[in-house]
Amino acid sequence: MLAMNVKRLVKKEVSRLRAYNAKEIPCRIKLDANESPYGFIGALKAVGGLDTNRYPDPEAKKLRILLARSIGVNKDAILQGNGSDELIYYLIATFGGPVLYPVPTFSMYGIIAQALGEKYIGIPLNREFDLDMEKTMAAIKRERPKLIFLSSPNNPTGNCFSSGKILKIIGQSKCIVVVDEAYQPFASKKGFLPLLKDYQNLVIMRTLSKIGLAALRTGFLIADPAIVGEVNKVRLPFNVNSLSQAVAIAALKEKKLLNSCIRAIIAERKRLLREMERIKGVRPFPSEANFILFSVKDPEGVYAFLLKKGILVRNISGAVRGCLRVTVGRPEENSAFIKALRETEQ
Amino acid sequence: MLAMNVKRLVKKEVSRLRAYNAKEIPCRIKLDANESPYGFIGALKAVGGLDTNRYPDPEAKKLRILLARSIGVNKDAILQGNGSDELIYYLIATFGGPVLYPVPTFSMYGIIAQALGEKYIGIPLNREFDLDMEKTMAAIKRERPKLIFLSSPNNPTGNCFSSGKILKIIGQSKCIVVVDEAYQPFASKKGFLPLLKDYQNLVIMRTLSKIGLAALRTGFLIADPAIVGEVNKVRLPFNVNSLSQAVAIAALKEKKLLNSCIRAIIAERKRLLREMERIKGVRPFPSEANFILFSVKDPEGVYAFLLKKGILVRNISGAVRGCLRVTVGRPEENSAFIKALRETEQ
Repeated sequence: MLAMNVKRLVKKEVSRLRAYNAKEIPCRIKLDANESPYGFIGALKAVGGLDTNRYPDPEAKKLRILLARSIGVNKDAILQGNGSDELIYYLIATFGGPVLYPVPTFSMYGIIAQALGEKYIGIPLNREFDLDMEKTMAAIKRERPKLIFLSSPNNPTGNCFSSGKILKIIGQSKCIVVVDEAYQPFASKKGFLPLLKDYQNLVIMRTLSKIGLAALRTGFLIADPAIVGEVNKVRLPFNVNSLSQAVAIAALKEKKLLNSCIRAIIAERKRLLREMERIKGVRPFPSEANFILFSVKDPEGVYAFLLKKGILVRNISGAVRGCLRVTVGRPEENSAFIKALRETEQ
Repeated sequence: MLAMNVKRLVKKEVSRLRAYNAKEIPCRIKLDANESPYGFIGALKAVGGLDTNRYPDPEAKKLRILLARSIGVNKDAILQGNGSDELIYYLIATFGGPVLYPVPTFSMYGIIAQALGEKYIGIPLNREFDLDMEKTMAAIKRERPKLIFLSSPNNPTGNCFSSGKILKIIGQSKCIVVVDEAYQPFASKKGFLPLLKDYQNLVIMRTLSKIGLAALRTGFLIADPAIVGEVNKVRLPFNVNSLSQAVAIAALKEKKLLNSCIRAIIAERKRLLREMERIKGVRPFPSEANFILFSVKDPEGVYAFLLKKGILVRNISGAVRGCLRVTVGRPEENSAFIKALRETEQ
């Protein structure tokens, strides 16, 4: 057979897509991916003796019961995902598009909508990085989205959106509104869990990836059981593997350790912010997450300089002009970052 | 807000779907899920010391290199999946529908096509459980599928399809043909890997789930790098987690153990078949996989009787009239199964 043009066989929307760039950049201090600096090595023991030959519990019952209890909902209100990423996939597969979200925000909402061939609409945030209600409500009216994703605290801006605005969107839109609370453990504001009982179209996403368990790929959505039931239909039966289930359960039981890691990150975030504010030419934005967005005069130059010092941050200047994003690391990592950043002062 | 009808918000195709039934049935001897009876407990040690707080290698480089070497292809010809299930998702997201496959076969081709809102077409196998070429070629001409899935050895029938027929389909159809070789390690016939270089529209799927690593959810597709590149665009960046990558690598290095487990299963399959043939009212079909399909006069009754004895098999009678499916277990499990099955003799 003659070689054929693979492109011709691919769906148009996919053909236009570019693969997610996950190039590994060698560094000494990794502050680019919003990972926790603290792992749970002890919890890894939980895989010992697992039957590797058996399929995982397709319902992740033990894990969901544990989570349900800690959150204060019924386990039927929880759906497990191979990371929140997978739950975004499933939500879009279940409800379809158009998919609406503010920009800048977590890139996967748009990427996955495109992969699934659904229309996606980004509405620019206002100058305070909060939701622009005029534009948002107009877009809802005009586009009639099936899904709205609101990451709050928002990545990469770090702030929580105004609760009143989120509530208005949930209340007035007739569609599913997903509040992605990946960074909620680091926020001072309360999250939206208490509102689940009042709004049937509200879906909340949570993840273990930012609190020390990114290696596991375990995310959750919490919603009305009727919604969970529908999304569950498009879920692959064994999407969270046995190893992740076992380690997640063990780690979640170490509540004290979990909480002290979160507190340490919040304390370091405060220190980082304070120290960054003192550096000339650097303007950090307040953060409710485990990272800080900051503007500099020469983002490319500062990024490269930090990397030369072995410190990897994320260059966000494509999404937010002049900005880099630094993840809160261990105290000594943060100090090294501050020291290097000071050297960029002119 | 008034409670609203969630169903109204859900895509029509999803609304019609039923969730995959993965009800846990208590039993003493589990021979229902085509799992290997042999695990790799030693390989679990590979997770020790992993940084649980870091995201997995998004490219699963080490694992792909190891697999590529053992298969004899370049690593760019391999794409990793959270089980083959996820790769089916990605293939359908990439190429779209209609999706065509013989029936009965692995149920996920149709379920996932439906979840993604694509047309799916099942073409009945002939009386020998082989591909019905007249019907298949007519359907290809009529429906112009974008994807054809051929599970060979086929689940639940256990046989390999005729290679000539598969080749004709690959050669004459203008679409992507996926040969799902999940059960190939147990087959006497050679697989389709050597043909990859001749057919650019051929995709082969393999999995670690049947050879002792179902807990990990690790599947692969092997194809022309141009195809891999396109499917990779719809892949979630961190779809195979760090724990699975580490354990899969460790287990794959235990080649001798892997092969001896496979040989043990093949030997037991032969014995099972021989013994089943001697039981009145039981008609086992030849198998190239790690399970045996067999017909009995009263499938519901035999299923219930075996379960009462603590032995769980799969009731396939909905897909193949009068048939049950038993996975090859450990020698003592198989003997218990044979003993119980003999008691159903009249």
